[in-house]
Formats: sequence, C-alpha cells, structure tokens
Amino acid sequence: MSLLRLPGLVDPHVHLRDPGARHKEDWDSGTAAALAGGFTTVLDMPNNTPPIVDEAALAQKEAAARARARCDYGLYLGAGPNNAGEAARLAPRAAGLKLYLDATFGPLCLSDLDSLRAHCATWPADRPLLAHAEGRTIPALLFVAEVYDRAVHLCHISRRDEIELIATAKARGVKVTCEVCPHHLFLTLDSSGLGPGFVEVRPRLAAQSDVDALWAHLDIIDCFATDHAPHTRAEKDGASPPPGYPGLETALPLWLAAVSSGRLTLDDVVARMHANPRRIFGLPNQPDTWIDVDPDLVWTIRADEAQTRCGWTPFEGWTVRGKVTAVTLRGAAAYDGERVLAAPGAGQNVRESIG
Amino acid sequence: MSLLRLPGLVDPHVHLRDPGARHKEDWDSGTAAALAGGFTTVLDMPNNTPPIVDEAALAQKEAAARARARCDYGLYLGAGPNNAGEAARLAPRAAGLKLYLDATFGPLCLSDLDSLRAHCATWPADRPLLAHAEGRTIPALLFVAEVYDRAVHLCHISRRDEIELIATAKARGVKVTCEVCPHHLFLTLDSSGLGPGFVEVRPRLAAQSDVDALWAHLDIIDCFATDHAPHTRAEKDGASPPPGYPGLETALPLWLAAVSSGRLTLDDVVARMHANPRRIFGLPNQPDTWIDVDPDLVWTIRADEAQTRCGWTPFEGWTVRGKVTAVTLRGAAAYDGERVLAAPGAGQNVRESIG
Repeated sequence: MSLLRLPGLVDPHVHLRDPGARHKEDWDSGTAAALAGGFTTVLDMPNNTPPIVDEAALAQKEAAARARARCDYGLYLGAGPNNAGEAARLAPRAAGLKLYLDATFGPLCLSDLDSLRAHCATWPADRPLLAHAEGRTIPALLFVAEVYDRAVHLCHISRRDEIELIATAKARGVKVTCEVCPHHLFLTLDSSGLGPGFVEVRPRLAAQSDVDALWAHLDIIDCFATDHAPHTRAEKDGASPPPGYPGLETALPLWLAAVSSGRLTLDDVVARMHANPRRIFGLPNQPDTWIDVDPDLVWTIRADEAQTRCGWTPFEGWTVRGKVTAVTLRGAAAYDGERVLAAPGAGQNVRESIG
Repeated sequence: MSLLRLPGLVDPHVHLRDPGARHKEDWDSGTAAALAGGFTTVLDMPNNTPPIVDEAALAQKEAAARARARCDYGLYLGAGPNNAGEAARLAPRAAGLKLYLDATFGPLCLSDLDSLRAHCATWPADRPLLAHAEGRTIPALLFVAEVYDRAVHLCHISRRDEIELIATAKARGVKVTCEVCPHHLFLTLDSSGLGPGFVEVRPRLAAQSDVDALWAHLDIIDCFATDHAPHTRAEKDGASPPPGYPGLETALPLWLAAVSSGRLTLDDVVARMHANPRRIFGLPNQPDTWIDVDPDLVWTIRADEAQTRCGWTPFEGWTVRGKVTAVTLRGAAAYDGERVLAAPGAGQNVRESIG
C-alpha cells in the first residue's frame, strides 16, 4: 500500500491529568503523544483535581490547556450531584457533559437516580451527553435520557451483553452512540500478560467472548477512542494501583494492523476516528489538517520511545504495521514522524474556534 | 356513611410462605387473613423454598394452594438466571413472572443484564411481568422492557425519585403500572416506632418527603398492594431479622381511615384494590363475589385478634375507621366479620377458573 493521507484523527476520550496530576501527564506531554499517534483533536475528561464541575475549575483547566496544548482540544464538564444548572450554563464552553455512573478513577461518581434525572433534564439537548455506564446502568441511563429526549454517547463499551443491548436499542431507533477502546478489542483479562497493578483498567478487561462480540458488532460501534489514562509505572506497581492505560500512541497502529490482517477496512477506521466523532461531538471541519501514514512500516511498540510521560504501555513489545510519518495541523507541520514540531500553546479549544 | 358493598378486593402481592415456611404462614392461615381483610383474590409471590422457577416447584405449590386456600389465588413464577424458556412455557398457569432485581428476602435475585434481557425478550407480551426494582434499577428495567415491547408492573414503589420518574414515563406513554403498600404511605423510617428487627422491610421505610411524594402522585399509582410478608415475632426479634411485614388484615382499614380523613375517595380505593389489579393481571370477573364494609366502625388493630400466623403487626394499637363485616366468595358466605367461613380448599386458582 502506498503512503496514506488521512484527515486528522479525533480522540473523544483522553485524560491528560492537567491540572492536578502533571507528574502522570500534562497538556504538553499528552498532546505531544496525541500528535505522534495521529490525533489532531483530543477531548479531555473532567476527573481532574479539582474536578471540572464549576466555572472556576473549568477556567483553570482552560488556562492550562491554552498554555500547553500542542494539538486542538475540547474540555468536558463533569456531572456532580448538584451542578446540573451550572453545567448547562457552561455548556457552550464544553466538549460535552460526562456522567460517571459506575466505578471509576477520581472523585466523580453518581449513584443516585435524582442527579441522573436532573442532568438528563437540564443539559442542553443539542450538546454531547456521554457516560461511563456498565451493565444495567446502560439501560438505566438510556431510559432516563429517552424520557427527556436526549441522545447519549456511551464510553468504552467492553462486554457482550452491553454491545448486544446497544445493537437492539439502535435497531429500535434509540438515540445512542458508542465507542470502544483498543485494549478491549486486543486484550483479554486472562491473556493480557499484564501484572497485577498494570492490568487494572475500568471497565476491566473482559473475556474472549466479549472481545469476539465487540468485533462482531463493529457496524454499531461509532468511535474508536483510546481512554488514554496515564499513571506512572511506580503508581501501577504500588499498593493501590490506579486503573487506566496510556493509549494515544498505540491506537492507530493497532487498528491499522487490523486493517492489514483484514479485520477492518481503512474506511472503517477513518469513520470511527474522524467522521463519526466529529459529527457526534460537533467539531469544526478542518480541511487544512491531515496526517500522513506509512501503512506498511512494521515496528515494535516501546514505551521508552513514546511521548507520553507515564513510561509504560500495555502493548510493550507488540509488533504492529503502520505508522504516522507526518501531521499537519491547520496548515502547519506539527509532527515529522520522529519529532513533535507544534509548540505548547499551538492547540486551539474547539469550542472557541467555532465561536 | 351507611354500610358499603364493594367488589371483592384483589391483593396482587402476598407471600403466604407455603410451601417452605409454614411456621410463618400457609395457604390456610394466609387466605383466612385475606378474607378477614376483604381480599377475595391474592396473587402469591414465588420466593418460596423451593423457589417457583420450574414446573416441579410450580406443581408442588399448585397442590398446596389447591388443598388449603380459602380464597381465590394466582401463583407467580420467579425469574431465575436460566429459566426464561421454561417460565414462558409455564406462563398460562401463572399469575405473572416476577423479576427480583434488587435486594430481597429469599434466593431469587438477578443482578446481571443478560438474564434481564432474556426474560423481557421471552416472557409472553400479553402476560403480566412485574418486578422488585428500586432506584436506578427502575429505568434499567423499563428500558429493556421497552425495547422488547413489554409492559411492566413495578412492585411496592417507596421513594420520591422513583414515583417522579414513573410519572414522567407514564406521561411519555411508557407501558408501566405500579403499586404502593400501606407501610410506605403511613410509616416513615424515623417515626415508625418499630424496633430494630421489626422495622426491617424491603424496600425500606423512607423519609417523610418520600411519603409526601407518594401521596402527591396518587393519580399515577395503579394498585394498593400489601406485600404481606409474615415472619414470626421470634424471627423479627432475632440476630438476623428477615425483612417484611404482615398486611392483609390492616390494609383496607388504613385506606378507609384515609377516606374518612379526606385524603382519598372511596372510588380511589376501589379502583386500586379491585378494578386496576383485575385489569393489569387479567383476572376473571366475579359478579357474585363482594364484601360488606361498615365504614364508620372505629376499632383498634391488635395482632392477637388477627388470622395471620405471624403474631405481630407494624400497626399494633392504631385506631382505624372501617371494618369488613362480611365476605361473599362466588355466592357463598366466606367471612362473617368475626369468623372465616370458607374452608381450606374453597379457593380457586384464577388461571384455572378462566381456562
């Protein structure tokens, strides 16, 4: 296959840890990893310290991103027990509203029915509403969203029963979209080879039957996200290992390897890493933003060659086929295949750029 | 008010403990309590020992009820992790299928998404499907039922957030009905006056704001059930008190006291204790079955004057207004205000009587 020019990829699910945990990652290192992985826009989750649940926290994060981001970005708000009104007011500045409805990393988790109802009723219907929901929480959310006429985007779907329910719901016309992550398509709990702390991720790695079901339902999977969730080697190796994997620099090569092996088409990948997330999250059209890819370059994933600050990868040593050789962000060279050229501050907030 | 003649009452939610725990109650004592309380039909829950999840257990329970029931009855099947097909096959003999989706007494509780989907997809759409579901489990169930075009009856609703969601769902045309129990309308957790073991019930007693919300949403409450769940005084006073209250002999007097005080009309009561449960559960019309009530008789609730075997009531010492003075079951005198006249075996299975 000859060299490919693809539109800039969008990752709708990253945790760049800035502010609050810059030793794990920050806007500088995290967006360098994004560009090296072919992503020109990342949408960053709100489980920072402090959580992004009010205007003060959002303003602090906007300033951090404006100063340090090398690629374009959007910032999610977090749904708290009492911030439905303020979140709705801040919606024009946000990439969307994230509902943490099941066990996760960080302080944001809603377990009651009332706050779920309040956010579904109050968040603007034309703005992205997305959730970490597993098992029965998925239909609970979909019902509440439906009675309030809201579309929902489901993050990091990982199980057979979940994807089957989503398939049934989509066939019935329910307004739902979903994403999956490479680690749930390429790893299983039994065979990941990851040590005790390193294997921890939410949703957990699943069984081969779950992985098979996700591949079988590719047609109803809207996005490939990374859920890039860096923690340091020391933290993952510690007594209370936090859940999460880095993923920005390994996602496209893994999907391209699946193209090489015939499990996916290149169109499948571009739809799920560019066109669909752009539509679902209302992102600007950027005709002067693209990436160049050598689809035949075979290489071995090595954490010590990566831009991310966390220093490890669950795919260490994997041989993949396909690599980003250049990234052009709004007309400017941003990555040359080895070095990140875009400087901290070069990134734009997608909500500011579209007014 | 003069003497009243009302249609025979239907209680869609009782636990007569037979087979499996006849020291608490059985078809004999339980249906005597039903008749004394004005109920001519009771629908009995499947959390027996053994649980009613297959044909052998159903046949055993049918035989027990046939031998001992003094009033008419129906028998629910229980939803287990692997019996969706058998339950559907047994549907013509059952009052309905009960899904235990939240913490309850007994062995039947489903926590996964798959078995919920299987039962909603497989149980006949024209047969009653009902559930113990609390909090977020309510929208989870309603969504799954909706994608499979099933109507759902929600048992013993007890919380403000739940009844408000049901109101919103009904306004949107969702096929859902619900019941409430006297203890959730007349008692609160803070002021019940019940001791530690005796207060235990599922769903738990709630706050005054929950009680107020239930009264305020009377228009969307379809049935008044009792959830008659007898345990002995010794069990309730023991180290692991099982949850549940008796209720068959106190329900109508409590609702009639609310009529006397102007919170309800008599039509409200008859709709929720006869017409609505008869419609929802597809019960036979019995023009020769009625009860006579003295609405002005003031009396004091005393467990030691009751028919139930359990020997206590959460309403001990309450003064109520209104009492059943006679019950006529399919043309025959079944209760005379003091003595139960219908013999064990006089009751008919509602699914056999309508063929």
